[in-house]
Amino acid sequence: MIEYRNLRVALLGGGSVGAQVASLLLQHGDELASRSGAGLELVGVAVRNLDAERTPAIPAHLLTTDAESLILGADIVVELMGGLEPARTLILQAISSGADVVTANKALLATHGPELFEAAEQVGAQLYYEAAVGGAIPIIRPLRDSLAGDRVTRILGIVNGTTNFILDKMDVAGDTLEQALATATELGYAEADPTADIEGYDAAQKAAILASLAFHTTVPLDSVHREGITSVTAEQVDAARKSGYVVKLLAICERIALQNEAGESTGEFGVSARVHPALIPVAHPLAAVHGANNAVFVQAEAAGSLMFYGAGAGGIETASAVLGDLVSAARRHVIGGPGVAESTHANLPVLPISNVRTRYQITLTVVDEPGVLATIATVFSDQGVSLEAVSQTIGSGSEGAAPTATLVIVTHEASESSLATTVATLGSNPVVADVVSVLRVEGL
Amino acid sequence: MIEYRNLRVALLGGGSVGAQVASLLLQHGDELASRSGAGLELVGVAVRNLDAERTPAIPAHLLTTDAESLILGADIVVELMGGLEPARTLILQAISSGADVVTANKALLATHGPELFEAAEQVGAQLYYEAAVGGAIPIIRPLRDSLAGDRVTRILGIVNGTTNFILDKMDVAGDTLEQALATATELGYAEADPTADIEGYDAAQKAAILASLAFHTTVPLDSVHREGITSVTAEQVDAARKSGYVVKLLAICERIALQNEAGESTGEFGVSARVHPALIPVAHPLAAVHGANNAVFVQAEAAGSLMFYGAGAGGIETASAVLGDLVSAARRHVIGGPGVAESTHANLPVLPISNVRTRYQITLTVVDEPGVLATIATVFSDQGVSLEAVSQTIGSGSEGAAPTATLVIVTHEASESSLATTVATLGSNPVVADVVSVLRVEGL
Repeated sequence: MIEYRNLRVALLGGGSVGAQVASLLLQHGDELASRSGAGLELVGVAVRNLDAERTPAIPAHLLTTDAESLILGADIVVELMGGLEPARTLILQAISSGADVVTANKALLATHGPELFEAAEQVGAQLYYEAAVGGAIPIIRPLRDSLAGDRVTRILGIVNGTTNFILDKMDVAGDTLEQALATATELGYAEADPTADIEGYDAAQKAAILASLAFHTTVPLDSVHREGITSVTAEQVDAARKSGYVVKLLAICERIALQNEAGESTGEFGVSARVHPALIPVAHPLAAVHGANNAVFVQAEAAGSLMFYGAGAGGIETASAVLGDLVSAARRHVIGGPGVAESTHANLPVLPISNVRTRYQITLTVVDEPGVLATIATVFSDQGVSLEAVSQTIGSGSEGAAPTATLVIVTHEASESSLATTVATLGSNPVVADVVSVLRVEGL
Repeated sequence: MIEYRNLRVALLGGGSVGAQVASLLLQHGDELASRSGAGLELVGVAVRNLDAERTPAIPAHLLTTDAESLILGADIVVELMGGLEPARTLILQAISSGADVVTANKALLATHGPELFEAAEQVGAQLYYEAAVGGAIPIIRPLRDSLAGDRVTRILGIVNGTTNFILDKMDVAGDTLEQALATATELGYAEADPTADIEGYDAAQKAAILASLAFHTTVPLDSVHREGITSVTAEQVDAARKSGYVVKLLAICERIALQNEAGESTGEFGVSARVHPALIPVAHPLAAVHGANNAVFVQAEAAGSLMFYGAGAGGIETASAVLGDLVSAARRHVIGGPGVAESTHANLPVLPISNVRTRYQITLTVVDEPGVLATIATVFSDQGVSLEAVSQTIGSGSEGAAPTATLVIVTHEASESSLATTVATLGSNPVVADVVSVLRVEGL
């Protein structure tokens, strides 16, 4: 029998992920030890309520409500409580006592990441967070290690399963947002209060984490432009499908070449992170991501386009990522030496969304009379926005009113600020009856 | 200015990948240093021919034909020569002199992997090989680290870009194999001698590497069942498309529950690796992998289904993976301590293809007369092979001959041995005019 050095693992949180992690640790101890080079002894699980029912069950003797005592003497602390406090304080305590920390807490990392990483660096500890983005999908490690010799230029991520389930249902079954949300709630894909998901807060946290990591730059959560899916209509999804697009809620992180006032590249770069619904072409690999799945599409200078796909949530799936981090932490303990500090060496300026350039699809109801198209086209060209495609459907105005037509316009790349001015000008033009919809187009 | 410890990097091979690695190392030195915590000094590039033209060019003063001298004193040796010798000997020399090694050499790893890993373990060095499978796609690190706490059950990989390009062209453009191969050669996707690709040798090497890593078991190259794509016909591809499938060359690695003679599970497991053309349903994520792209679909007990997608080859893409490994190696040097040994702790038995159970699609031309279907069905049931679907098309026999029909049969899971017996029996049955095609069906 092989003898391993024993590492003490303290688990904070006994929810759906915590219970799975505890169960897998207890079941597969020998296997994990042989892969880690160290025994992983679960010394306890800190929970709020000792009597709560858990699936799978956690042996009662491991449960405690005293997280602070549990941390003392642990070699590795796994934080799966979620939320900002007491998670932040407990992680800082764990780090200062010399433990490595594994966490799935995206809200905490997006909000207090720099503080935590710095605390870890000071004592040579390491913070692992593969489970914070994309559930079981390996995305943190590929960005931090595999692409460490490359330059990431862009990330397009479907990082929220709830909204992808809803949008997919709207696309495939023709549901309204309300119907699709009701189904998601019924099936357990949406929480009783779905705000964090459908308003894009969850995706924005993940965008901040991905952008910070990919661009070696601290990207604060409040710099992430955020729009949820609540304004996406069945008509938009239907119209998108008919013109060869799918509507997805995307987390988009970009490295952007800075320009001077004359529009010339300065040779410097900034970064941007944003979350909003967007049209992507049906042929794009992200368009085939159905249901509650997640996928992260990464473009890098040398590597080209990569995609990482899988289940973005779920107790056991997320537990897989946590255990991978646990094995990494254990291997590091066996080897010794300080952890690798979170790299923010680039510290590029973080740009507001007005610096972003993308394509747009604008749907307008216009008065159906000669010269209207020329009028509309002039509004775009006055703002320097050039058009890629225009399609017109003759509609029928309500009785007695002037006849109307629907125009669907796709632009070439334009800045958010030019587009905003264009849309405002269109809205006040007498030939425009209604600006039906403005959607960004990505992945071209 | 930050001062870094300097690491000496020796590059063996100045081909398309080597030239890109050299160029990126020289161009992005500062950036790589800040990510590694160490300067990466390219001390030389060993090549066969000093005067060969290279894109991008390598500064002449770095070139040498003396690989052995170059290795001496290097902290990290990057082997991009390919082939078994002198690569094997040089890597062993590098390891014994205490260097870490980065390699993209799939043939060498599949053939002499255990020898190299053992040599590295003995001196505490580390061997990195992300670039050996799937070009820029991070797959080695996710399997070794991210999924280290999980149990991989199955891998389906499109790991050869040349054959995927050819099969995709046959599917999308209706080309014959010869036409598609000619286009692939013209566009540089196939080599002048395409044998290694189209006969599946390249994919088999990658299957051996993936299976060894995923199952913590040494899977020798000669245990990988290998069939290439040379027998795939335009008619098969066309028929597959019409029935909702795509033909792909897959590298399949499976963890298989062992059974006793009564067909009961013994509770033990073995592993199998094989490469052959297979039908996959059009809705499977792998079906959307077009052109020369690669993708690896991984199923694990906790993580569920994951997919990793990207460019599988190309000088600069592969260079991205090599540089990621270089940064990892540099970080390890900074931290100190021994490398993590390649895990073969499980060492499950490696099974021949006769142990594999999968589904099959069998296309037969049969005599069109009453009772034929019953006769055919009996041949299957005699071998314990149950049928999932049968479709029949009435054909017309050649003039004067008996009328014939085409039967397309999809089976439930059956063993390779039962299927082989079934096909042999069908072939000698007088009602069967021809066994047109037998293809495995995967990804259901």
